[in-house]
Amino acid sequence: MIPTGPRPTSRTPDTSLYERRESAVRSYARSMPRQFARAHNVWMHDNQGGRYLDFLSGCSTLNYGHNHPVLKQALLDYVAADGIAHGLDLHTDAKAAFLEALEQLILLPRGLDYRAMFTGPTGTNAVEAAIKLARKVTGREMVIAFTNGFHGMTLGALACTGNAAKRGGAGVPLSHVAHEPYDGYHGADVDTAALLERRLADPSSGLDAPAAILVETVQGEGGLNAASPGWLRRINAIARRHGALMIVDDIQAGCGRTGGFFSFEGLGFTPDIVTMAKSLSGMGLPFALTLLRPELDQWAPGEHNGTFRGNNHAFVTATAALRHFWSDGRFERDVARRAALLERRLDAMAAEHGLSTRGRGMMRGIDMGSGEAAAAVTAACFERGLIIETSGARDEVVKVLAPLIIDDALFSSGLDILASCIREALALPYGVAAE
Amino acid sequence: MIPTGPRPTSRTPDTSLYERRESAVRSYARSMPRQFARAHNVWMHDNQGGRYLDFLSGCSTLNYGHNHPVLKQALLDYVAADGIAHGLDLHTDAKAAFLEALEQLILLPRGLDYRAMFTGPTGTNAVEAAIKLARKVTGREMVIAFTNGFHGMTLGALACTGNAAKRGGAGVPLSHVAHEPYDGYHGADVDTAALLERRLADPSSGLDAPAAILVETVQGEGGLNAASPGWLRRINAIARRHGALMIVDDIQAGCGRTGGFFSFEGLGFTPDIVTMAKSLSGMGLPFALTLLRPELDQWAPGEHNGTFRGNNHAFVTATAALRHFWSDGRFERDVARRAALLERRLDAMAAEHGLSTRGRGMMRGIDMGSGEAAAAVTAACFERGLIIETSGARDEVVKVLAPLIIDDALFSSGLDILASCIREALALPYGVAAE
Amino acid sequence: MIPTGPRPTSRTPDTSLYERRESAVRSYARSMPRQFARAHNVWMHDNQGGRYLDFLSGCSTLNYGHNHPVLKQALLDYVAADGIAHGLDLHTDAKAAFLEALEQLILLPRGLDYRAMFTGPTGTNAVEAAIKLARKVTGREMVIAFTNGFHGMTLGALACTGNAAKRGGAGVPLSHVAHEPYDGYHGADVDTAALLERRLADPSSGLDAPAAILVETVQGEGGLNAASPGWLRRINAIARRHGALMIVDDIQAGCGRTGGFFSFEGLGFTPDIVTMAKSLSGMGLPFALTLLRPELDQWAPGEHNGTFRGNNHAFVTATAALRHFWSDGRFERDVARRAALLERRLDAMAAEHGLSTRGRGMMRGIDMGSGEAAAAVTAACFERGLIIETSGARDEVVKVLAPLIIDDALFSSGLDILASCIREALALPYGVAAE
Amino acid sequence: MIPTGPRPTSRTPDTSLYERRESAVRSYARSMPRQFARAHNVWMHDNQGGRYLDFLSGCSTLNYGHNHPVLKQALLDYVAADGIAHGLDLHTDAKAAFLEALEQLILLPRGLDYRAMFTGPTGTNAVEAAIKLARKVTGREMVIAFTNGFHGMTLGALACTGNAAKRGGAGVPLSHVAHEPYDGYHGADVDTAALLERRLADPSSGLDAPAAILVETVQGEGGLNAASPGWLRRINAIARRHGALMIVDDIQAGCGRTGGFFSFEGLGFTPDIVTMAKSLSGMGLPFALTLLRPELDQWAPGEHNGTFRGNNHAFVTATAALRHFWSDGRFERDVARRAALLERRLDAMAAEHGLSTRGRGMMRGIDMGSGEAAAAVTAACFERGLIIETSGARDEVVKVLAPLIIDDALFSSGLDILASCIREALALPYGVAAE
Repeated sequence: MIPTGPRPTSRTPDTSLYERRESAVRSYARSMPRQFARAHNVWMHDNQGGRYLDFLSGCSTLNYGHNHPVLKQALLDYVAADGIAHGLDLHTDAKAAFLEALEQLILLPRGLDYRAMFTGPTGTNAVEAAIKLARKVTGREMVIAFTNGFHGMTLGALACTGNAAKRGGAGVPLSHVAHEPYDGYHGADVDTAALLERRLADPSSGLDAPAAILVETVQGEGGLNAASPGWLRRINAIARRHGALMIVDDIQAGCGRTGGFFSFEGLGFTPDIVTMAKSLSGMGLPFALTLLRPELDQWAPGEHNGTFRGNNHAFVTATAALRHFWSDGRFERDVARRAALLERRLDAMAAEHGLSTRGRGMMRGIDMGSGEAAAAVTAACFERGLIIETSGARDEVVKVLAPLIIDDALFSSGLDILASCIREALALPYGVAAE
Repeated sequence: MIPTGPRPTSRTPDTSLYERRESAVRSYARSMPRQFARAHNVWMHDNQGGRYLDFLSGCSTLNYGHNHPVLKQALLDYVAADGIAHGLDLHTDAKAAFLEALEQLILLPRGLDYRAMFTGPTGTNAVEAAIKLARKVTGREMVIAFTNGFHGMTLGALACTGNAAKRGGAGVPLSHVAHEPYDGYHGADVDTAALLERRLADPSSGLDAPAAILVETVQGEGGLNAASPGWLRRINAIARRHGALMIVDDIQAGCGRTGGFFSFEGLGFTPDIVTMAKSLSGMGLPFALTLLRPELDQWAPGEHNGTFRGNNHAFVTATAALRHFWSDGRFERDVARRAALLERRLDAMAAEHGLSTRGRGMMRGIDMGSGEAAAAVTAACFERGLIIETSGARDEVVKVLAPLIIDDALFSSGLDILASCIREALALPYGVAAE
Repeated sequence: MIPTGPRPTSRTPDTSLYERRESAVRSYARSMPRQFARAHNVWMHDNQGGRYLDFLSGCSTLNYGHNHPVLKQALLDYVAADGIAHGLDLHTDAKAAFLEALEQLILLPRGLDYRAMFTGPTGTNAVEAAIKLARKVTGREMVIAFTNGFHGMTLGALACTGNAAKRGGAGVPLSHVAHEPYDGYHGADVDTAALLERRLADPSSGLDAPAAILVETVQGEGGLNAASPGWLRRINAIARRHGALMIVDDIQAGCGRTGGFFSFEGLGFTPDIVTMAKSLSGMGLPFALTLLRPELDQWAPGEHNGTFRGNNHAFVTATAALRHFWSDGRFERDVARRAALLERRLDAMAAEHGLSTRGRGMMRGIDMGSGEAAAAVTAACFERGLIIETSGARDEVVKVLAPLIIDDALFSSGLDILASCIREALALPYGVAAE
Repeated sequence: MIPTGPRPTSRTPDTSLYERRESAVRSYARSMPRQFARAHNVWMHDNQGGRYLDFLSGCSTLNYGHNHPVLKQALLDYVAADGIAHGLDLHTDAKAAFLEALEQLILLPRGLDYRAMFTGPTGTNAVEAAIKLARKVTGREMVIAFTNGFHGMTLGALACTGNAAKRGGAGVPLSHVAHEPYDGYHGADVDTAALLERRLADPSSGLDAPAAILVETVQGEGGLNAASPGWLRRINAIARRHGALMIVDDIQAGCGRTGGFFSFEGLGFTPDIVTMAKSLSGMGLPFALTLLRPELDQWAPGEHNGTFRGNNHAFVTATAALRHFWSDGRFERDVARRAALLERRLDAMAAEHGLSTRGRGMMRGIDMGSGEAAAAVTAACFERGLIIETSGARDEVVKVLAPLIIDDALFSSGLDILASCIREALALPYGVAAE
């Protein structure tokens, strides 16, 4: 049973509590000024009875939707039975079940051999662990990251992040990372992998030998730029040739968002290290993971640790998600079909307005040409009950990150709203090509 | 109804799954080789029927014990009702309830005026946010931390951490932090606050003007060193005099562990910034908080962010914990009584063997003189079903971090086990004074 | 009267003293194992009666040849009269005369308005001062340098240097500098200035806003790569557009080596800061200078200092050199004629062997394709009494840095030796195209 | 024949040339606004006929006075004979003679076994080379320097320098160096070597294992603080125990200033590395040297280099100075006698006014209590024709750095001027104890 559509609330609630007691650093709450009470499947409900269709999915943290019944029941059962909630990094039944599911349902079927490192349960912790390990294993300091890359906000991960406003918050210079041009950065005619190879092969280029090359296959925050398989394979070969580890940051693009469990499946290379977070727990619970080739597992016990590195509630929901969605190929086929629908619809919108699209799989958007135009679109969508956000260096890309489990018809209805809001926004004077 | 005592299991379970699929970085699981299934109150149960008394409490993450019935029920109700599990930093009913409880039950009664910044839900994220803000507000880079301090494992927080093995994992030099001697570090005769004042007042000392002084009132990982109130006040005055912010890292010492909700209550000073995590959610769920004086809230929206910075499940349990434990003075009185019991018992053990004790409140330990002796104690305890760990530069302090809600009689029984294991360990040839 | 030609000595002298008492860091002495006693004009004489034609000129430090009689006499007179040898940065007659000559003979005729900062008397000190000032004036940390750039060996300048072997000596990571591709680095089809502009204009490129762009117009150590005037103008415009200062490191290319007193004369832009050293004293005495636009002169007194920052002997010889060589256009015309001769002869050698040439003015070389081939050429030259060295990322370029005052016929004879040695070397099996 | 005394000029010369063309960074010229023309022995002559007694000696660069006739003649002969002025690091007769004199007259008689590394000819270059080597040999990054230490202004050396104003000029945070309290820094009762040992022995102190401990035996710029022999030996033992190299920066205190050729002679320890500059050339010519134990000479050829690293003119004068002053014990005895005179006189001045003295050998001063009082003294001295300067964190120490060759009677006359000016200055209202 699909609800007929969004029913947003128009009244902005009293926000004095937040102004008084929550830091000014809050952000999403500013463009979506409602107070949310509950959520189910693709719907978020505010505390005034409003209902919103979620095309943001917690920035790809809720790939299976909100409170998926299977995951929710698994969690309820676990908590009711006094399952371990917190056990540092002790062995627990919940962790064992997760590791078994990861091995049986994900790694073995894909011919991958990784060990799981449970870092602190946020993506930035997973990235910090990955680059620490790469530096330790190689004995080198430099990490190569890419233009428009986003990898987190703690100091090590932030140094790998491209965004100047985020970087400026560090308060100290960010070091030991070089940002190289991503695929397509200098236009279709310039092979940026060749530029990188040239510099690494040159003993006088000033680019120090790297410990790692850290890359997203699709840049979630950086504007949904999707690297081509060939470029990724070349980067992988460059890493290998120059003694660097290749780290794929799959925090946003993984867990089905681009089709497979990993975003690099079928692209012809295998990363040395993979970072996961966001949709890993399946239900939005904090959880992160750094996967590493066994030969690289040169950690001393406790050399990287953290209080919450074994979030057992997340083990439970993550295991349920792996079993429910990844035991056979049905989910992947569903996602592929929806991704094709999304591509078709976005291409049509772009063609209608002379715009261009970005992305891959269920991680796609439309480049509105300016942050102002994109903001006008997302604001109009929100007024109609569609939660959707922007991405990119200037927030110029409207990104569709719908739950992967969304009903096709409802997905289409949501995209209708988007198409309509783009049309309206382009009628406004933003200096972008109108139809 | 108190169980009569621990009933540990002697068989070590098959660990091949962990060896195959979990990184070698795991640590606690090595000294406590069991697989745990469930936990309640002060008890942890392994999957072979064994029962263990928990004197570790997730390193002070489970101050209210495991799966406290009030908190557990609140979580079950919330999940069952499709409460928002993940909503980025959107306003939610759960967040509003938490902020209200924080304001009404914690801040206002203590005359404190802070804003809450929800960082990524780990302590290290909260510390990174705190030092970023201090650097931004002051325009300075240097942070002063202390010998034996522990503040986390991401690059910014790790630079503030004293432990050489942890620091060595960084793979890059750790910069922009100076470690100054903590209270008592150079013996009772040297006032280390005076040493610091001397250097900060000297324009040629080589110590750059600091953005912040970051301090634990009791050093949890560093050996349960408790700073005197006078020293902390002097440090606070030094910070003020030299234009630096004072950050109290209350991640381990807060939430009742040293008696009050904050470890600095009643000590005669108010920090500019406070970091919280560990027991904040009350049930062991990942949750962290950076509290800051409103004048310091100079963040731009999203300048420091993160996917999981609003862990709504944790809001729910944290709110329940605040209401249940901090609405009146009963809990604090109970903790004070247990702390006095702990002090008395540890003093007796120390006197018996010519050892010394450390710590404050329910965060105390006994210095065994060497890591070997301390490890012998904790291993013997584990064999008898008592989960207890070490702390300190050389892991030489056996630390008692029992749940704060432990029944007095049971607490005493647990301490009997400890006393007995110390006696046994000291009979072994570890070069420490025997009775 | 020109001597008829080199008369090298074949015996290598006893080097036990050097092995015993001089550090292994010595380098040129290894490939030219003679002990030199005296030198005059273009000739160096060893202590066994051998005579060598100098095509190295102290890496462009002896543009006016060895012990030029006018400079030598000025120094002898000054010393004999008890002229100030060392006076910290006190005003001296010698300094005043230098500043006057600099103003009258160099700055005013070229319409340049700079102030002179006398740094420690080495090029690396001048570069350190330049980047310090740029960071101070702009309040930014990042400096953009280029692939194959060489700027010195102290930590600040070394961070700007591209060579991996030199960088590796730092022992700490080199930070706060990004190395961007120099003109032509990615082939003739890629405009590397456009690549840089793209990244600086992108708020998410990860390239922090720069304090300065530091560039050599011809890369002396990096392989005699000469930037095109258009590229340099574009770089200058980029610096201006993005609030960065443009620093031209003219240490090797200045003082007539590329034709004018400054290497950037007539190229259509004016740097904000210029660093000078090497041939500045005219006689090979240690002397360095940082020229800066008056508006940038925001130094506090003594904010950058050093014991030897007023080398008065060098003031004397530098003033004599300015007066003797730069009072009229004769010297520049002579250099232009010799540069044309050099270009013609190197082009012919390159054409003969299918090789390519590099450089500009009297700073040119021939790319032998490999360091081995180039070393074979320079070794053969030395055996015939011609002192000549290599340059480039792999030491693959044989560089001709003859004294600018060399007699045309003698220059031609020296080039004959070079041509002949190239022929010989290419007959050896080095894997380069033979004739 | 000693001149009867100073005859200063009262007119300040026209300084418009300097204001127009010399950077505002100039410093000494501001407090001594004369233009100097020539200098001999202990006298400096301005261009208006004035004569000044030099108690500054180029900050200990002119220990043998100005234009010493023996050194001057050696230089005149060398230049007249077309001796090599500049030869990169090629072997020259002048270098050989210097190395032989160094070996025979300095190293062998003192039982020292060092190799000489000719760095760029400034002290800061020698320090940069020393810390690079220490980092390379040990594989560590951290260098321990001391409060009030001064080691130079290039980025690596500046990080080792304590002075905040100098450090502030860096424009980037200065890293990889910890400044520890020098001998006596925390008063007579605190053994700062013990404080350092405590932290280095503690694996959780946050002080990373050091590559080197860099120390001045007397802090020239930092206020003439003289370390006790016992403290230096303890520091040496600490370095040895913790695998660090001990570097003595003897740039200001060496070459006879404190009595022996090295300032550490007879103190009971031997540094691993020694840096020299200032008076090394004997005549004020730029020259610097890093001496290193042969086992540490792990440099690759050219790994640290520089254009002017073989200043042959300085080799010539330095060799003459070694032969003239260090062939027998006469010079050392003369210096000892003058140092005793200086001590006696300064002690009397201090006693007269309730002040204290600082320093050792011919490197002594009087602490005026404030920079204002000290500046009043030096200004009054200059008006009477005595060139003298201040030192210390707040420029509060008037330092006597007379040429070591000064005639005893003239020395005494100069000290009379100083005593008189102190008396006058203390009569002014500076808040210091008057007689």
